[in-house]
Amino acid sequence: MSTHVFDEAIALQPQPDGSWLGQTSAAYANMVGPFGGITTAQVLNAVLQHPDRLGEPVSLTVNFCAAVADGAFTLQARPARTNRSTQHWAIEMLQDGQTVVTATAVTAVRRETWGVDEEPMPLCPPPQDVPLPSATAPMAFVQRYEQRAITGNIPSVWDGSGHSSLSQVWVRDNPPRPLDFASLASISDIFFPRVFIRRATHVPVGTVSLTVYFHASAAQLAATGTGYLLGQAQAQAFRNGFFDQSSQLWNEAGVLLVTTHQIVYYKQ
Amino acid sequence: MSTHVFDEAIALQPQPDGSWLGQTSAAYANMVGPFGGITTAQVLNAVLQHPDRLGEPVSLTVNFCAAVADGAFTLQARPARTNRSTQHWAIEMLQDGQTVVTATAVTAVRRETWGVDEEPMPLCPPPQDVPLPSATAPMAFVQRYEQRAITGNIPSVWDGSGHSSLSQVWVRDNPPRPLDFASLASISDIFFPRVFIRRATHVPVGTVSLTVYFHASAAQLAATGTGYLLGQAQAQAFRNGFFDQSSQLWNEAGVLLVTTHQIVYYKQ
Repeated sequence: MSTHVFDEAIALQPQPDGSWLGQTSAAYANMVGPFGGITTAQVLNAVLQHPDRLGEPVSLTVNFCAAVADGAFTLQARPARTNRSTQHWAIEMLQDGQTVVTATAVTAVRRETWGVDEEPMPLCPPPQDVPLPSATAPMAFVQRYEQRAITGNIPSVWDGSGHSSLSQVWVRDNPPRPLDFASLASISDIFFPRVFIRRATHVPVGTVSLTVYFHASAAQLAATGTGYLLGQAQAQAFRNGFFDQSSQLWNEAGVLLVTTHQIVYYKQ
Repeated sequence: MSTHVFDEAIALQPQPDGSWLGQTSAAYANMVGPFGGITTAQVLNAVLQHPDRLGEPVSLTVNFCAAVADGAFTLQARPARTNRSTQHWAIEMLQDGQTVVTATAVTAVRRETWGVDEEPMPLCPPPQDVPLPSATAPMAFVQRYEQRAITGNIPSVWDGSGHSSLSQVWVRDNPPRPLDFASLASISDIFFPRVFIRRATHVPVGTVSLTVYFHASAAQLAATGTGYLLGQAQAQAFRNGFFDQSSQLWNEAGVLLVTTHQIVYYKQ
């Protein structure tokens, strides 16, 4: 069995001091440096692989402090507090001794409780009825995801005509790969910067901080398999150089797997 | 001029090693331990008071690792990375040498840009037309906020009859106090746990992680003054011991000051 390119990209080598050594992946390159989603998955993987980990991911916040340079990086993941059923992690990614990412995560042993999905999956045509794009952006990471945009696709004409930042898209790994927490973390950052959609204007952007809440259990991820996820994203406010965007990811069965939020720098 | 009880509650004494010493405040006590909002404000204050701080708060994530005990605490705030116009902070709150809170924050020098509030302020009656509650919960912190619930108030009968977790409320400090970043951070956690509203059932709860995105500038906070904020909160998913809730805070002029998200533990 050959390894999926995603697994190669998030692979980490344990170091004698308890830290991890990783490498950026050309397959997940963005315009400059790596796609934020793959960095997020690498950060989470330092927790997932940690011998002292308790339970499954519940919450993850990743702060992008500086551009990640192509090449090697070190990840330090420290359990700051371990309780009976929850665990709190402090994580840093370093390059040349400088912090390029700070992060925190919560893992937990989850038990079955009463539950309900209050945010309904929007009514959308099934993935097979939504065409693949006729053209895609040139960044390598875009080729790593099969995306079928239902609404709010990246503008084909940049004429400043946008009026809403809402996007809905079917998405999965390309080639398909059974969903797990690491790939779900990466897909949580798949949504184009909302300022592109809202303004149909190309401006410099960069995610500053990303938070992912995992509602899915490992069993629900296994049940999702290589199926499509329905992603939805929308901004709430654009103001003085920063905007937020909130997103949801459902599986085809309509289970809300993730709710995620980020704040993004923009210029002009 | 006497000091507002909020200023007393968030006061921090600088220590020779660069850390801060603070005290929990009986005036902001919750059922057990302090109100999460006041802890959030104390955490942010360690950044706001730091001599090396660059710019204003953009993003704040606070992870509640363990119950904060009544009494003294130490706050360590470290600038993990300082760029030209943004700065990344790693923060920890300790009691008896144990981590009780981990946090990260981003501050930035913000410049005027194109902007728009995409999430409109909901149509609600003005604060003076919304009555004060006839009874309030017994926790001390509830008395520190004037709250006029429009919809989705804490149930008066716990009969399991809830069907939506949406709440809208006018809120401000009690007694009134000119809004600033610290008080806005605290008010970001004012919303009752959504599981109470959705289920009309009382279950044990505790916020695990809270993220605040600050859209307002210091000038917009000054313009807000002691006016009311319109708060809105709703959950997206309740599943296996954790639910999320997303909230917005507008000032009376309709400016979206904050969008905020949290994930909350619940039992049963």
